[in-house]
Amino acid sequence: MGNSTIDTESSGADRTGVWLVGAYGNVATSAIVGACAVADGVLDTTGMVTERPPCTELELPSVEGFVFGGHDIRETTILTQAKKMAQDGTPNPAIVEAVADELEAIDQAVERGTAINCGNAVDTLADETVDGDLTGIIDEIQADLRSFRDRHALDRVVLVNLASTEPTLEGTEQYATLERFETALEANDPALPASSLYAYAALDAGYPYINFTPSTGGSLGGLAELAEQNGVPHMGRDAKTGETLIKTALGPMFAARNLDVLSWEGHNILGNTDGKVLDDEENKAGKLASKGDVLDSILGETFHNRVRIDYTPSLGDRKTAWDYIHFRGFFETEMKMQFTWEGSDSALAAPLVLDLVRLIAHADKHGLAGTQPHLASFFKSPADVDEHDLSKQFAMLSEYVDRYADDSVEQSPPRKPPAGEWL
Amino acid sequence: MGNSTIDTESSGADRTGVWLVGAYGNVATSAIVGACAVADGVLDTTGMVTERPPCTELELPSVEGFVFGGHDIRETTILTQAKKMAQDGTPNPAIVEAVADELEAIDQAVERGTAINCGNAVDTLADETVDGDLTGIIDEIQADLRSFRDRHALDRVVLVNLASTEPTLEGTEQYATLERFETALEANDPALPASSLYAYAALDAGYPYINFTPSTGGSLGGLAELAEQNGVPHMGRDAKTGETLIKTALGPMFAARNLDVLSWEGHNILGNTDGKVLDDEENKAGKLASKGDVLDSILGETFHNRVRIDYTPSLGDRKTAWDYIHFRGFFETEMKMQFTWEGSDSALAAPLVLDLVRLIAHADKHGLAGTQPHLASFFKSPADVDEHDLSKQFAMLSEYVDRYADDSVEQSPPRKPPAGEWL
Amino acid sequence: MGNSTIDTESSGADRTGVWLVGAYGNVATSAIVGACAVADGVLDTTGMVTERPPCTELELPSVEGFVFGGHDIRETTILTQAKKMAQDGTPNPAIVEAVADELEAIDQAVERGTAINCGNAVDTLADETVDGDLTGIIDEIQADLRSFRDRHALDRVVLVNLASTEPTLEGTEQYATLERFETALEANDPALPASSLYAYAALDAGYPYINFTPSTGGSLGGLAELAEQNGVPHMGRDAKTGETLIKTALGPMFAARNLDVLSWEGHNILGNTDGKVLDDEENKAGKLASKGDVLDSILGETFHNRVRIDYTPSLGDRKTAWDYIHFRGFFETEMKMQFTWEGSDSALAAPLVLDLVRLIAHADKHGLAGTQPHLASFFKSPADVDEHDLSKQFAMLSEYVDRYADDSVEQSPPRKPPAGEWL
Amino acid sequence: MGNSTIDTESSGADRTGVWLVGAYGNVATSAIVGACAVADGVLDTTGMVTERPPCTELELPSVEGFVFGGHDIRETTILTQAKKMAQDGTPNPAIVEAVADELEAIDQAVERGTAINCGNAVDTLADETVDGDLTGIIDEIQADLRSFRDRHALDRVVLVNLASTEPTLEGTEQYATLERFETALEANDPALPASSLYAYAALDAGYPYINFTPSTGGSLGGLAELAEQNGVPHMGRDAKTGETLIKTALGPMFAARNLDVLSWEGHNILGNTDGKVLDDEENKAGKLASKGDVLDSILGETFHNRVRIDYTPSLGDRKTAWDYIHFRGFFETEMKMQFTWEGSDSALAAPLVLDLVRLIAHADKHGLAGTQPHLASFFKSPADVDEHDLSKQFAMLSEYVDRYADDSVEQSPPRKPPAGEWL
Repeated sequence: MGNSTIDTESSGADRTGVWLVGAYGNVATSAIVGACAVADGVLDTTGMVTERPPCTELELPSVEGFVFGGHDIRETTILTQAKKMAQDGTPNPAIVEAVADELEAIDQAVERGTAINCGNAVDTLADETVDGDLTGIIDEIQADLRSFRDRHALDRVVLVNLASTEPTLEGTEQYATLERFETALEANDPALPASSLYAYAALDAGYPYINFTPSTGGSLGGLAELAEQNGVPHMGRDAKTGETLIKTALGPMFAARNLDVLSWEGHNILGNTDGKVLDDEENKAGKLASKGDVLDSILGETFHNRVRIDYTPSLGDRKTAWDYIHFRGFFETEMKMQFTWEGSDSALAAPLVLDLVRLIAHADKHGLAGTQPHLASFFKSPADVDEHDLSKQFAMLSEYVDRYADDSVEQSPPRKPPAGEWL
Repeated sequence: MGNSTIDTESSGADRTGVWLVGAYGNVATSAIVGACAVADGVLDTTGMVTERPPCTELELPSVEGFVFGGHDIRETTILTQAKKMAQDGTPNPAIVEAVADELEAIDQAVERGTAINCGNAVDTLADETVDGDLTGIIDEIQADLRSFRDRHALDRVVLVNLASTEPTLEGTEQYATLERFETALEANDPALPASSLYAYAALDAGYPYINFTPSTGGSLGGLAELAEQNGVPHMGRDAKTGETLIKTALGPMFAARNLDVLSWEGHNILGNTDGKVLDDEENKAGKLASKGDVLDSILGETFHNRVRIDYTPSLGDRKTAWDYIHFRGFFETEMKMQFTWEGSDSALAAPLVLDLVRLIAHADKHGLAGTQPHLASFFKSPADVDEHDLSKQFAMLSEYVDRYADDSVEQSPPRKPPAGEWL
Repeated sequence: MGNSTIDTESSGADRTGVWLVGAYGNVATSAIVGACAVADGVLDTTGMVTERPPCTELELPSVEGFVFGGHDIRETTILTQAKKMAQDGTPNPAIVEAVADELEAIDQAVERGTAINCGNAVDTLADETVDGDLTGIIDEIQADLRSFRDRHALDRVVLVNLASTEPTLEGTEQYATLERFETALEANDPALPASSLYAYAALDAGYPYINFTPSTGGSLGGLAELAEQNGVPHMGRDAKTGETLIKTALGPMFAARNLDVLSWEGHNILGNTDGKVLDDEENKAGKLASKGDVLDSILGETFHNRVRIDYTPSLGDRKTAWDYIHFRGFFETEMKMQFTWEGSDSALAAPLVLDLVRLIAHADKHGLAGTQPHLASFFKSPADVDEHDLSKQFAMLSEYVDRYADDSVEQSPPRKPPAGEWL
Repeated sequence: MGNSTIDTESSGADRTGVWLVGAYGNVATSAIVGACAVADGVLDTTGMVTERPPCTELELPSVEGFVFGGHDIRETTILTQAKKMAQDGTPNPAIVEAVADELEAIDQAVERGTAINCGNAVDTLADETVDGDLTGIIDEIQADLRSFRDRHALDRVVLVNLASTEPTLEGTEQYATLERFETALEANDPALPASSLYAYAALDAGYPYINFTPSTGGSLGGLAELAEQNGVPHMGRDAKTGETLIKTALGPMFAARNLDVLSWEGHNILGNTDGKVLDDEENKAGKLASKGDVLDSILGETFHNRVRIDYTPSLGDRKTAWDYIHFRGFFETEMKMQFTWEGSDSALAAPLVLDLVRLIAHADKHGLAGTQPHLASFFKSPADVDEHDLSKQFAMLSEYVDRYADDSVEQSPPRKPPAGEWL
């Protein structure tokens, strides 16, 4: 991994480029450290969905074949970030030590990114960013990706958005077609956020795209059109790692038993950079929307449904949620369920990044374009999927596996040349 | 309901006899009060699974057509029991008042039952019980059922076991065939518990049978043989109403996300008669087994899995469970989930009794014999079903509905005449 | 109680007038219902601090001798309010029924009140309020009180503020002396809130005053001066009934054991009118301040201390708090304590109203003027008391009892004639 | 610390020998590691009661002056045990590394101990134990102590029992006087447990004694007589570090507010050796008794009070308690409080060991003999103290400090020569 000798020689196995936007953030750092440690055999794959049935029946690109690169707006190194995280215990210091050399090599492939139109809370994190004309920014992103691909002779590059949550974009109707989107691009529309520029850059160039965050990313109509036109798979948004995951596992039980949920209160406290950015009301709005909506879909919209997110620095990478569910059963009897969930954000999110890269790469190899509904279980707001019931989402993944398991991998159908022609 | 004028005239609708063993217990009393209140239009059907999709697509016997009777070993009345329960709020006093006359009428159909071989804890509840030869006891039960059926001109009688939990029966191999079972019967086997005598009486006479409790009931091989032979549907055991319900909704999430559960501690406190009987270690064993096993099936058997049940009188009909789930994710990071569930036993169980009667009656009408796997979601230890994942169990119910929905109800196939020939 | 025949004849016992501002609110209604029920012997005194040692050693005015009156801005009756509350179970319907006649009699003594300068959230509750010149409002309040006193031949009237929480008053320095306060009064200062007008009316007329709420009330310097000048006892503010009570019981343990609290998160959800008014950010500010400050005083100000209050209608009169305490011990080991508190606001607050009336009346009888520090344990922001450790506050009450226990009650010292001369 | 050059030269400061029975256990190991780390300035004193007011006003022996030794029945080393613990994070590995040399030096002073009459669960831990005549065992213990004292030229040696919990001793009346105790000794009474032999050895030889565990230790009448006769201070038993600590902080609040506790359920799960030994019902009995009794003393004995302790290996050194408090207030309204406490046993207990050594040494220096009630706040079953209210117990400590603060230390009064004459 990251070792160029092996890289060029491993002709048989797929070599998958993993390009992380927000490469120095906690989730990206954890994903990189974890992938290196798994590849080196010093860490097991607990927490990776693709390492248990049904996904083990698919011929997925191996984590050992991952090559990492990315963009960030901070001046630091992955090793520095990993060591900072290790002080809180996740990843643990011995693991970071074991893969330190590989982390240093990856820094060569981290480029200066853009945080244009991401709100004040994100701006304060930035050391240096790419600015200027939107089309110029996109050109620069694509040049970085192309250079990365060529340098490492990669079969395929997956772009994953892991950058801090942006403020919600209003008026998405203005970007509902590719034409409108490109008109906005050329007019240097001051509302178009960085995450959508990255999505455009990836989809335009034919790279599979994952939006792990609540930011706008590839969710605009114009970008969906671009993905279909270029035959590129993409999926998002807002990875489902903790409280919302539980909601989508528990909510269907209340529904199926015909219990009447009166109120579902969720109070989240968290302490990492994610928490600090979300402490800004503007950036929090998007997150709250995707967290809250899942229950409405499962239980109907007639109950009191509140989600709070607060920043509690002492928790570090830990996220704690308290949920209080007030419901009514037969005889109008009022009852309650409460839970607290104390998770490590990085330990929960990092393996899902690796899973999604493997699965979207698999879809790409099989020529699947557009949104990938079988990945719904990974997201709070799964694109083009109305189903939020976790078990039904898992069933969608199982069906995908049934379809592709045991097949010798077919050649993917011819793909339209990407707009930039530079591949 | 219970009104004889209407009863005889409602020729079009099914008239379903509901025979409750343990008729004066909390769950039975609640089921009766609730059914009367629903039939009278003074209570909504929140908590009834059959009153929401998918089951609403089935042509089920209506609650309005239920006629109640049963056995008990205590000297009291349903109204007395209902009023005692209403002091704790469930069912609420106004509801009990509204159906008081109907409750008094039902007492006419409650006969003296048996609690033979049910353990000391149950014996202390008894005012008077049927004793003597086992075959004599069975004859008496069947005579009561036949008389009930004839008196009310019922289309069908469903027997539901709601009596207090018996001690676990050891050496079930001795009853693994019908022949062995009947040999034991004739030998007055001192280990054969009341619940299995009731099951035999029902299945032998061709009555659908539901075991709502953890007691042995119809779970013996010989009784399964009898049900198949007589073409009678039956299902059990141990209704899934609270903590275990949650376990089977949450457990699959840990499995699907490849999270490694280290320990799952469950501590239950409850205050009703059920709790008092379970305070006896002998009677508790069966309950603990069915509560604990569900997780092993979902998560494997490699983790620490403990269930405690304690009697806390001040809780009355309320059941509180605290579950503590210690698990490990990526990077060997340890995390925790805790929940408390504060439910009303009666409010949760009573509507399921009504659901099960409707569904087993439906199966009976369609000529289905033996265990009914599509009812697995109702039970902690569903007979002949290894699947404990709640959502997959619900999917089994949905499939059943798909099969039978919209069909004009067919005539049930001819059924072998029941052993006793007395119908 | 409220029966005029008995009232005039009970010459031996003290007859204490209890004048409740916000008489139709939940706490006032509960206090009235509870006092009547205790007086009638249909309710025990669980929850009343004055009914257990040490206070039982004091010769306190009896609840049987209480005569109720008050002000409100809503058009309703106490019985109506009590019945509405009884639907949620507290007080229970049978109790309300038992004292219904007495409640109807008390309505005669509820006058139209003022809600001037109380914020929009309170305004929306009002049916009709007293407006106009501030001095005119005060005159009207005093006339109501005098008439109540005379009509019932009361030994003493205690005014208790139970009205909804007002927005925080800024610039309290402007009212730091009696002269400045009265200047503001005459200038019809648009910032002076109703609670302070009531406090002025009471203290000016020589009536003991209790501020049970977080509103400004008697906390201004000018009013303290007035109380001292007139020799009137008063105390406030913000009764300590739930989450904050626990904080002041638990916080000292962390301090005494030299444990380092890193974060103390408190999330409160509640569903009554109090919750609705507090849902307005303006009105919430005062409440949050007094809830948060207690911990700073006990643990120092170096930790993360957040209090949230949210309105959850389905809870009705119930208040639920979740507190999460993240702390560090020896070896820098991080540990956690969490609690949830599920209390009935009325059941917790009502008996404290009765306690405070009895205790402030006792202080008044013994000629004590100004703030009453021995009542600190009842309040989140006890006037003139820096000690928030609950056990030390209880010790202050015990010392007071030691001083006054067993004494034959002395004549109170001569009191300066109140400003209005009308007593 | 443990450095002989410094040891002999630090003539000015007190040199206190700390003799730990169960020296290789978690609490002892933690106390030793912690003391070394504090002495070396690599660890702060968070969690030590003696390092904050009021105790900082006392002239206490310094932790820097502690010299450690002890008895154990296992073959291992302190460093080995400390490293094993560090894998779970407490103490953290860097701290253990920093004091590794000192730990190795201390092993020289750990002698083979006895576990006579400690029950099967403890026996399984033993590699080698001292057996034989009880008087012979005591002689050997005293010889070890004397040698330790002489070798290190100690001013004083404090013996602390930290060994695993023994089964409850029945028939304590047989040891109610010194004469009876010594008769039993000579008769090799097979019921006399190791903890009492250690206590006898210490008190007989004039060494202050602390029983940190629920074992019998110095609690027998005969040993109390011995302590008085020899003028030796001693105190116990069962250090109050977690759930019980909270109970004694919260319980008084319910009492003072006249709330009626109906049930207080406590469920403890823990994963260390302590948990494994307590998993044996025989050894658990004593622990449960002292945990349960504190509430009876505070709240009366009329409520349902249950304590459960279960062994959950995955928790390691962590202890988690769930407490559920069901109580009733005014209007007979039922309410609930729940808490979970997630503490590290070692991090909570170790600093208290150091505190108790310092405080009992101080008492010894001031010539105080017998039980030391001012140390009640440290224990679940404080000897000769009926008060369990934590804040009142802290007040007793404050009073002690007030008595001895600022005093130039007086010469202790002449002490009776210890029985053995060997000092």
